[in-house]
Amino acid sequence: MYDPVQYMMSLGGKRIRPVLTLLAAELFAGDAAAALKPALAMEVFHNFSLVHDDLMDNASLRRGKPTVHTQWNMPTAVLSGDVMLVLAYDLLLGVPTHLLKEVLELFNQSAKHVCEGQQMDMVFESAEEVSLQQYIEMIGLKTATLLAACLKMGALLGNASYEDQELLYRFGISIGTAFQVQDDLLDSYGDSSKFGKAIGGDIAANKKTYLTLKAFELADEGQRTELQKLFSANDLKVEKKISRVMDIYNALEIKRHTEEARDSFYNEAMECLHSLKGISDEGKKMLAAIAEDLISRQK
Amino acid sequence: MYDPVQYMMSLGGKRIRPVLTLLAAELFAGDAAAALKPALAMEVFHNFSLVHDDLMDNASLRRGKPTVHTQWNMPTAVLSGDVMLVLAYDLLLGVPTHLLKEVLELFNQSAKHVCEGQQMDMVFESAEEVSLQQYIEMIGLKTATLLAACLKMGALLGNASYEDQELLYRFGISIGTAFQVQDDLLDSYGDSSKFGKAIGGDIAANKKTYLTLKAFELADEGQRTELQKLFSANDLKVEKKISRVMDIYNALEIKRHTEEARDSFYNEAMECLHSLKGISDEGKKMLAAIAEDLISRQK
Repeated sequence: MYDPVQYMMSLGGKRIRPVLTLLAAELFAGDAAAALKPALAMEVFHNFSLVHDDLMDNASLRRGKPTVHTQWNMPTAVLSGDVMLVLAYDLLLGVPTHLLKEVLELFNQSAKHVCEGQQMDMVFESAEEVSLQQYIEMIGLKTATLLAACLKMGALLGNASYEDQELLYRFGISIGTAFQVQDDLLDSYGDSSKFGKAIGGDIAANKKTYLTLKAFELADEGQRTELQKLFSANDLKVEKKISRVMDIYNALEIKRHTEEARDSFYNEAMECLHSLKGISDEGKKMLAAIAEDLISRQK
Repeated sequence: MYDPVQYMMSLGGKRIRPVLTLLAAELFAGDAAAALKPALAMEVFHNFSLVHDDLMDNASLRRGKPTVHTQWNMPTAVLSGDVMLVLAYDLLLGVPTHLLKEVLELFNQSAKHVCEGQQMDMVFESAEEVSLQQYIEMIGLKTATLLAACLKMGALLGNASYEDQELLYRFGISIGTAFQVQDDLLDSYGDSSKFGKAIGGDIAANKKTYLTLKAFELADEGQRTELQKLFSANDLKVEKKISRVMDIYNALEIKRHTEEARDSFYNEAMECLHSLKGISDEGKKMLAAIAEDLISRQK
């Protein structure tokens, strides 16, 4: 049961979540020591959610390696995920006692949001109609909440004011949302040599992304009918399907619309950043650099 | 996602775990109010473990109703279970702040034990040889730990001394183990009209129970060979298989041996009970009555 935990935690990844927690604590308190265990807790929680999400989505690869339920089996993935969630709570018990309740409230709320986001994502798969607003809500819950909670956790442990904690949380939600929108964009408009996977994977898989949903929103009747046909066709070659969908995306200027949405979330994040009172300008530049890095990544 | 939580929590059951927490708090503090939310947390945790165990064991019925993964599907069972575990932690945040860390340490340890017990149980299924000692360890982790933790949780919230908390914990481990041994016994020697399910179900399912393992321990070479044949035969009628295994059980006096083991755990529990300092004799009688009820239950 603990082997898959070890396996999952050593698959790598950017470790962006613990970095955010440690950085936020460092920027407010000048010292990240108190945030070390909670930062690890956030990474363990993230990996718990990946183990169970991969199982629920029946994904066979994670970071180029077999997923836990593929390498072992379904019961092992369920149980190892469960024990990882408990281990995350174990790590949280390392925070100063007077902050414990607040830390756990933040963590529990985020954990529930991540579950709710995954639930929405699964419902969307078979849903007839999903609005852009619902999609933004879903990625907010599933992806952005945890990034935001990581930042707020660090701020809380760094004794930031309540106002600054909230600003950093909102910064995280906006950056996390911009990050997911950019991820959607790269799947269709990325440079495949840098992106690390084939372009058009989301289109091939009929995935509802920001691009798809925006296209349905802007399409005229003829385009809508064609999109519906393309996304339900089984007899079409994948390359042909991708290229026809991309033609409609291009006609509707989906790339520009998506970039605008991403930039709008990015700008919201920057506004929150500027309003922070307890962090030096230099600290704000570091947070902005991480945000920039997350959004403009080509892979 | 929350519908299956509601469904699972309303299936009923004896609610023995919250009762133990509330009673322990009441007996030490004269008031169970502080233990109400933690008691609920223990019941929610127990139901979380049932949802995931049923999925892992591919069980189709729970308390006569379809299990969550049968009524919905695998992803829903995974996700609803996850959110129940988080909800259990939410409920624990309701304890007095100065006890929060201790309460969570107790809870986390028990949660890990329950996962480890389930892991052992799954490993045993395909294991060639399992010793009685390993079996006792497994039911200790999977079943007795949570009952013990419920009692200790109540004691802790009732401001019991550390010694009394430990005694009550050991009382719970012994009673929980006796309870499971009795459960194994009833499956082969119970009164089917009272037991509520067919006699010999464990034998039919080749389940490793206290009875099976004791029989293998006591069997001579001929009996051992026959038992091995019976437990790997696919061409045998179930009634015939059960009756032949029971013949060997009877020849080896497995019923008496199992009753002795059960009584020995029961007596250990009673010794712990008598050593408790912070509970009146009347309180001890109430705990003994619950223990009696758990062990001698015919259904």
